[in-house]
Amino acid sequence: MKLLRKKSGIIIIGNEILSGKTLDRNSNFLCKRLLKKGIDVQEVSIIPDIKKIIIEKINLFRKKFDYVFTTGGIGPTHDDITSKSIAEAFNVDIVLNNEARKRLEKHYSDDVLTKARLKMAFIPKTAKLIDNPVSIAPGFYIGNVFVFPGVPKIFQIMIDQFFDKIDKGNKYYQKNVTTILSEGLIGEFIEKVQKKFISIEIGSYPYFKKNSFGVSLIIKGDKKKEVEKASIEIFNYLKFKNGSPRLF
Amino acid sequence: MKLLRKKSGIIIIGNEILSGKTLDRNSNFLCKRLLKKGIDVQEVSIIPDIKKIIIEKINLFRKKFDYVFTTGGIGPTHDDITSKSIAEAFNVDIVLNNEARKRLEKHYSDDVLTKARLKMAFIPKTAKLIDNPVSIAPGFYIGNVFVFPGVPKIFQIMIDQFFDKIDKGNKYYQKNVTTILSEGLIGEFIEKVQKKFISIEIGSYPYFKKNSFGVSLIIKGDKKKEVEKASIEIFNYLKFKNGSPRLF
Repeated sequence: MKLLRKKSGIIIIGNEILSGKTLDRNSNFLCKRLLKKGIDVQEVSIIPDIKKIIIEKINLFRKKFDYVFTTGGIGPTHDDITSKSIAEAFNVDIVLNNEARKRLEKHYSDDVLTKARLKMAFIPKTAKLIDNPVSIAPGFYIGNVFVFPGVPKIFQIMIDQFFDKIDKGNKYYQKNVTTILSEGLIGEFIEKVQKKFISIEIGSYPYFKKNSFGVSLIIKGDKKKEVEKASIEIFNYLKFKNGSPRLF
Repeated sequence: MKLLRKKSGIIIIGNEILSGKTLDRNSNFLCKRLLKKGIDVQEVSIIPDIKKIIIEKINLFRKKFDYVFTTGGIGPTHDDITSKSIAEAFNVDIVLNNEARKRLEKHYSDDVLTKARLKMAFIPKTAKLIDNPVSIAPGFYIGNVFVFPGVPKIFQIMIDQFFDKIDKGNKYYQKNVTTILSEGLIGEFIEKVQKKFISIEIGSYPYFKKNSFGVSLIIKGDKKKEVEKASIEIFNYLKFKNGSPRLF
């Protein structure tokens, strides 16, 4: 039986990702942070700046997962339609948020707080702001959906600042075993161990570095004892097979 | 009215991506290649190595898109379950493919062609092989689903080799306009142009380089004339606003 961990989904919004112009690094950053918090990421979906598609994906994900994170599409230009789409998904109006407007007014002088920029102060009516210490224009959250900008530097700082507000899930225990034997040689044994310890999850990652190659195994689960037992069983097998294992 | 372009979806399979351990670069590589071919990528989905989830996503995507590409999960270890899952999605058996077996036998000597490695010759019954010039174990395609390994170097070579077999879609015409003015200052005008030329798509990408910043606008569409007209209209506006535009 597995303990219930909080589940999350990530929605990356932006034509520039789907055209290959931009390499998405935000989901990787967020996956790492969520893993640390003990929150599973169950799906990452990259979608275009199309209102209908954003609405459908938001409504699917917010029912499916405990937390949903979005990045992209909350800037000042005409193709930034995330806020409007999320308001529609939640069936609320999009309104000028006074606090957001004040922050932008403080940040920009009158003549550069254009209509386009002021657009960033419009958020869904019942949403709450997420601070943006870099470029001021805030993110927001509504229900279980957390909405962030797509610019990586700003995204990363906002995530780190905001994360303490999210309930912690259960933490993983994790052990690593490395060996100089290849996946093809150890696959059958690892499968046996996986079947024996059903509460754990074994990941197998081949590596190639300069003149050495081998496999890094990551054994993780909710139960410390099970993780340790499985890791030692794998370690002992690899030692017996002269696989120069390391356990840490 | 937009011309019909072929639509594709990409499914990235692997727990190591969702845990943040590995940064996915395969989808970015493939998005670029597909753009060149004139094929739209409408969604990228990153999902875990869980059979039920793979089957559901395959069946959803193959109905939704003209082409579906998957990477990951066709290696020799117990957590490589993509082939089995795709067979099940198509309701066919997974069988030892003679051609694939022969290739592996030729590549490996008897004592290293382990049961785990031979697993890579099992593919869905009606599938056809996709050559792998690097590590031999083939990919395959069945219906409109194209299945590739996840190791980036191998993936990239296999994609490049295989691509000529896919029907070409319609090509985009594309123009670029750059300016030293910010998104906030030009957003309203760009929105007007977007509304005027409904067959085109304008993307707006701020850039920051050393001491300069500005915006790069990408104007694309099926109709060369429309793309050119819109680009010139934007260029002239930016020139009038002293935005030092470049058009190319």
